[in-house]
Amino acid sequence: MTVLILTSEEDVTADMVVVHLNGSGVPVVRLDPADLTHGVSLSGEYVHGRFRGHLSVGGRLVSISGLRSVWVRRPGVPAGRAPQPSAWLTEEASQALYGMLRGCDARWMNHPDAALRARHKPWQLRLAQRCGLPVPATLITTFPRAAREFAERFPDLVVKPVSGAHPQDPPRAVPTSRVAPDTDFSAVAFGPTLLQRRVAKRADIRLTAVGERLLAARKTTAADADPQEVDVRFATPGPPWEPVEVPARTADAVRAYLHRAELAYGAFDFAEDADGTWWFLECNQSGQFGFVEVETGQPIARTIAEWLSRPVPEEPAELDEAGSAMR
Amino acid sequence: MTVLILTSEEDVTADMVVVHLNGSGVPVVRLDPADLTHGVSLSGEYVHGRFRGHLSVGGRLVSISGLRSVWVRRPGVPAGRAPQPSAWLTEEASQALYGMLRGCDARWMNHPDAALRARHKPWQLRLAQRCGLPVPATLITTFPRAAREFAERFPDLVVKPVSGAHPQDPPRAVPTSRVAPDTDFSAVAFGPTLLQRRVAKRADIRLTAVGERLLAARKTTAADADPQEVDVRFATPGPPWEPVEVPARTADAVRAYLHRAELAYGAFDFAEDADGTWWFLECNQSGQFGFVEVETGQPIARTIAEWLSRPVPEEPAELDEAGSAMR
Repeated sequence: MTVLILTSEEDVTADMVVVHLNGSGVPVVRLDPADLTHGVSLSGEYVHGRFRGHLSVGGRLVSISGLRSVWVRRPGVPAGRAPQPSAWLTEEASQALYGMLRGCDARWMNHPDAALRARHKPWQLRLAQRCGLPVPATLITTFPRAAREFAERFPDLVVKPVSGAHPQDPPRAVPTSRVAPDTDFSAVAFGPTLLQRRVAKRADIRLTAVGERLLAARKTTAADADPQEVDVRFATPGPPWEPVEVPARTADAVRAYLHRAELAYGAFDFAEDADGTWWFLECNQSGQFGFVEVETGQPIARTIAEWLSRPVPEEPAELDEAGSAMR
Repeated sequence: MTVLILTSEEDVTADMVVVHLNGSGVPVVRLDPADLTHGVSLSGEYVHGRFRGHLSVGGRLVSISGLRSVWVRRPGVPAGRAPQPSAWLTEEASQALYGMLRGCDARWMNHPDAALRARHKPWQLRLAQRCGLPVPATLITTFPRAAREFAERFPDLVVKPVSGAHPQDPPRAVPTSRVAPDTDFSAVAFGPTLLQRRVAKRADIRLTAVGERLLAARKTTAADADPQEVDVRFATPGPPWEPVEVPARTADAVRAYLHRAELAYGAFDFAEDADGTWWFLECNQSGQFGFVEVETGQPIARTIAEWLSRPVPEEPAELDEAGSAMR
């Protein structure tokens, strides 16, 4: 049984996991959908109520029914590197590849449906609330009056995008920023705006969840930190990330979140306040973990490799004589 | 409790359903996401573990927790008609609208996740097989040799796109066509190709499923029909669509398909062969039904209206004082 990794060639984070998979002797196929149909080939046959599918990369053939898990890391646009790329070819290649893989019984990290859903920030906030995670008071609105009333109730606010990165090429992260006390909210009418009560934080928390395993890291806010720098991604580097234990209540809530979101992997960001409460900011279903592993020494890559290596649940074996046509 | 319909203004099929909803006195809000933020507004507040959200269209305000169902018909691109449209505004508006709606407890026809998954033809074929529907032998491949061997086993083939319509503007349907006996399959290497055994059909079947209710129509293949015209959408008009009973085994299999696909609505296409077998061709989760209703008199629009009108399952009521800020 093989582990399939969908990612681009220059993904060093995937390399970290592959090292562990190779070390334990688990077969791995790494494939970038961008290389369809130039380097990567596929074939699937539906005959007499059965499906037999194969992928080929670099001359190596793997049976789709022989996949134990699929890791969707940073896959390229299907057929994006074809000699004559087009929107039509991308659509055809995407439907063919993901359509076949979606029909297989492998375990996913993360399943494309769960991944897509998990990207919705408003949905994240609601799910976090329902799972019992503390969520800072948040408003998403196109009503200037609602924004003004919210700012009266919660005078210390930050503003951030509702979606993730700005879709320019390459995409650019939009930093979270503080809202000035005298802000005029009339421009809110032109686009949905996310306002959130600023948590006066004494640390940032990054909790990386791999299956049932939770690995948390903490970065103390420097005493002399600029109070305008609320976004750790853009702040001047302060103290390093250090491993921290996950409070039991938070662990239960995080596991409930992952279960209801049907995610096998998630990178949670929290802000820790002066009382030690972890305030939920977001859960990135494809968040990077390399920087945390490097600074803390936590075995995230190894944990992912172990999750991917687990055998699939028992299922009826399918004969595989059709593969011969593609060899 | 209100029915929310997401569709464009000029959707006459939606009009058919709205007539029935109005007739039974069920409140309806019709909204095109393209009108965000110019005519349509939204606001959602996450405070103290609770969510209170509102949509406003044409000055009318509706609470998101007061929605009984959401019908995703033919919604426009979010913020597509904004005064200054952009990819970024569309992304923000899409995440805000669908992110809030995804967190509510309304019943969906169809849920966006299920709708997206259901578009994958290879996945459809596999699910149909698993539910016991007869599927004509099918190959999806980029291996010319696999295509050649398949054509030797099944000499009478059709070719069709793996995905749906060609993504030009406006999108164009690509007809299913017969494959000539002397076809050279070497071009298969340049893009995934779907080959399928041609069913020598004596009728086309369109089965419209609305919840548990199945409404099937049959169009006899004319005796003098051009055998090259395999795609009913592009064939010369023959006999009309007529209501037909669904065989019990097919009904069970179709209901199993809908259940596993988590679809509340689906338009199934079958080809009926000389033995009377219905061969599964595809299930379009957003397939049109107006033409069938007009020709057969089957009450599809009324059935959809009834499905949308059903009360949501019991849930804790949420107070609604926050709406005042947006009025």
